[in-house]
Amino acid sequence: MEPIGFVHTETEQIPRHWTISDVEGSLHINKKYLDGLRDIKPGQLIVVIFHFHKSPAFSHQFLIQKPKHKTEEMGVFSICSPFRPNPIGMSVLKMIRIDKNIIYVKGIDMLDGTPILDIKPYITDKSLDNKDR
Amino acid sequence: MEPIGFVHTETEQIPRHWTISDVEGSLHINKKYLDGLRDIKPGQLIVVIFHFHKSPAFSHQFLIQKPKHKTEEMGVFSICSPFRPNPIGMSVLKMIRIDKNIIYVKGIDMLDGTPILDIKPYITDKSLDNKDR
Repeated sequence: MEPIGFVHTETEQIPRHWTISDVEGSLHINKKYLDGLRDIKPGQLIVVIFHFHKSPAFSHQFLIQKPKHKTEEMGVFSICSPFRPNPIGMSVLKMIRIDKNIIYVKGIDMLDGTPILDIKPYITDKSLDNKDR
Repeated sequence: MEPIGFVHTETEQIPRHWTISDVEGSLHINKKYLDGLRDIKPGQLIVVIFHFHKSPAFSHQFLIQKPKHKTEEMGVFSICSPFRPNPIGMSVLKMIRIDKNIIYVKGIDMLDGTPILDIKPYITDKSLDNKDR
């Protein structure tokens, strides 16, 4: 694994989750991947996979955690905590505009300097919640 | 990065994407993470982050690819191809039942033996598509 780029934001108070974030910033992607960015269009939602680079090594105590905004403890695989067996994060961001290899986005919940591992299209199955898949 | 578990499915024809998959299988999670699974409930959708372990090393030729089901070439960051700078995959699966450290799921689009890196809750912002985030 090697970062494809890094998150940049000047906001110091980072919201706990992208669903409640209006924070703007940019994704500085390594120029060698420029061609791969060509179909990301303004207004689109993108999935950003990143490295929780500030997280401590995982230990048994993190298997059950109490999120700050919840009253009860929960298993790590049911919450979005940065303290995970593998420190991989995922956020859905709104693409505002792109300037060569710099993608300007809204909805940031990552720290400035966060290494980006991948960008994927945001695909939903509209009937997912209702259908017996 | 170290797998937290592995995908198991007996189906040989794996659909190209979880949005069109009815394939059932199971996620065999390392028993040391058992406590972290306790809040994953039947019927829930879960996000599974995994390693495209059969993908070749990334090279420039994969920056633009033509998905089999599309007529045009697209940038790698706008498609779900397993040929990516970092071979990380993401699928949304439906949890059917859990038996200790084995999670039975539906919607599989990964190969048998795929290493699992993380499981996250499937969280959507229902107003995401319409709201100016």
